[in-house]
Amino acid sequence: MTDATTVRVPGHVTLLFSVHEAPNAAATGSRGVGLTTAEGVTVRIGPGQGVRVNGERRPIAAVEGVLEALGVEAAVDVETALPLGTGFGVSGAAALGTAFAANRAFGCELTENALVRTAHVAEVEAGTGLGDVVAQAHGGVVLRLEPGAPPHGRIDAIPEAGRLEYLALGELSTPTVLAGDTAPITAAGDAALEGVLERPTLSRSFARARAFAEETGLLDDEVAAVIEAVEAVGGTAAMAMLGRTVVALDDGLSRAGYDAVETAVDPHGARFVEDA
Amino acid sequence: MTDATTVRVPGHVTLLFSVHEAPNAAATGSRGVGLTTAEGVTVRIGPGQGVRVNGERRPIAAVEGVLEALGVEAAVDVETALPLGTGFGVSGAAALGTAFAANRAFGCELTENALVRTAHVAEVEAGTGLGDVVAQAHGGVVLRLEPGAPPHGRIDAIPEAGRLEYLALGELSTPTVLAGDTAPITAAGDAALEGVLERPTLSRSFARARAFAEETGLLDDEVAAVIEAVEAVGGTAAMAMLGRTVVALDDGLSRAGYDAVETAVDPHGARFVEDA
Repeated sequence: MTDATTVRVPGHVTLLFSVHEAPNAAATGSRGVGLTTAEGVTVRIGPGQGVRVNGERRPIAAVEGVLEALGVEAAVDVETALPLGTGFGVSGAAALGTAFAANRAFGCELTENALVRTAHVAEVEAGTGLGDVVAQAHGGVVLRLEPGAPPHGRIDAIPEAGRLEYLALGELSTPTVLAGDTAPITAAGDAALEGVLERPTLSRSFARARAFAEETGLLDDEVAAVIEAVEAVGGTAAMAMLGRTVVALDDGLSRAGYDAVETAVDPHGARFVEDA
Repeated sequence: MTDATTVRVPGHVTLLFSVHEAPNAAATGSRGVGLTTAEGVTVRIGPGQGVRVNGERRPIAAVEGVLEALGVEAAVDVETALPLGTGFGVSGAAALGTAFAANRAFGCELTENALVRTAHVAEVEAGTGLGDVVAQAHGGVVLRLEPGAPPHGRIDAIPEAGRLEYLALGELSTPTVLAGDTAPITAAGDAALEGVLERPTLSRSFARARAFAEETGLLDDEVAAVIEAVEAVGGTAAMAMLGRTVVALDDGLSRAGYDAVETAVDPHGARFVEDA
């Protein structure tokens, strides 16, 4: 392999989604709306083996799935300021970053679509996500029109960006939610996506996300109280799917008195640090 | 409209291509391989009317087609260090930048795919390009697998980047070449694309581009001599389609003694300057 290769992948907050199972993992995925965050994940591939997150050994099944699919052995260092398990798609970002970095480091000569598919399949098979990878490859305010990775999935985007804030209140297990009855989520998510597509703007996406969180019962009292407090000061906020995290446009959370983390919509998808 | 809105769009050099006509302009386009350049185009929309390029009035039919399709009137200022008519897709970049900027300035609420389609259709109808717009929306080393704009076209990319140099020797008229017999170009271009897809790397793309330029007779003696001089010092170069321009990897042109312009593969597509 060549010298260490480093890839930057944005975080991804899903605002609303529906679940679509297919006979193969590449065609399985979610439809929905989400946004990528400038606060993201940096993945570095080097000689050795094992996955470290912020310096500590922590296995990520989707990352191991990518290495296995590419037939390579490497040490994967993931650095992130994002809290794990709170709805920022850290596992998807780590898998996608590993695919890009390993492809370059080992000269696998796969195309971008093939790498996105490899990471998406590993994430679906690990049960840790359904739509983060394809959104993180694209960047921006991403509309997942059809589920799955290329050539199955279909992506569009809302050409808006801007400042964001987030407040992470705790974890919500993606595998647990996905293992439950997802039919009501999918009915609400498909209707919400249609609503956004009628008028594809960021503020409309947040409004639909707000209703989606309530309809699906994924919103708990603590998260709902924070969203209401942001709205009380004229702000716009929604819950990250899936995490007990509130994301607000502009400075909505700090205006409501919360000690929130500042970030912004990242208009770009995964990229090599050495190319930027 | 809101305050002036500014969009940055990379240049795009097509390395090889085939022509595909369809009953509608959105499905018409080219297949092929190209790369976006960091040297690009900045488009600013403001009140008024008329198109200026580097401060001088200069109509660009594709830009006017975009404004008409969006139903808006605006002054469009295009700034670029790229030479016009030499194969960098300046008209496509100007059209795409106009679509993004006008959409935001006038609150048109179109999605990214709709804006790409609008710019692509305007460019095809103007006869000034077939594949630059979709590549410039994506960025990087772009594989145009299927012709046309979303939802017709299909894009992939080679996840490589790096330094480039170019030397512009003069213009070559895209409308004139496209008005001629394109069947031999399309046969050579489709075969060359298949060759790249068998092993999708940047160096293979240049090798296939080199053969494509010869097979199609688009290569003239002066351009051929420069490419050979770069190869004589161990470099890699190809002709930009369509312009009398040589593009080389790394510092191939200056190593061969030419006074070339330095640039790099731009890994990103069109973006708002205010979001970056």
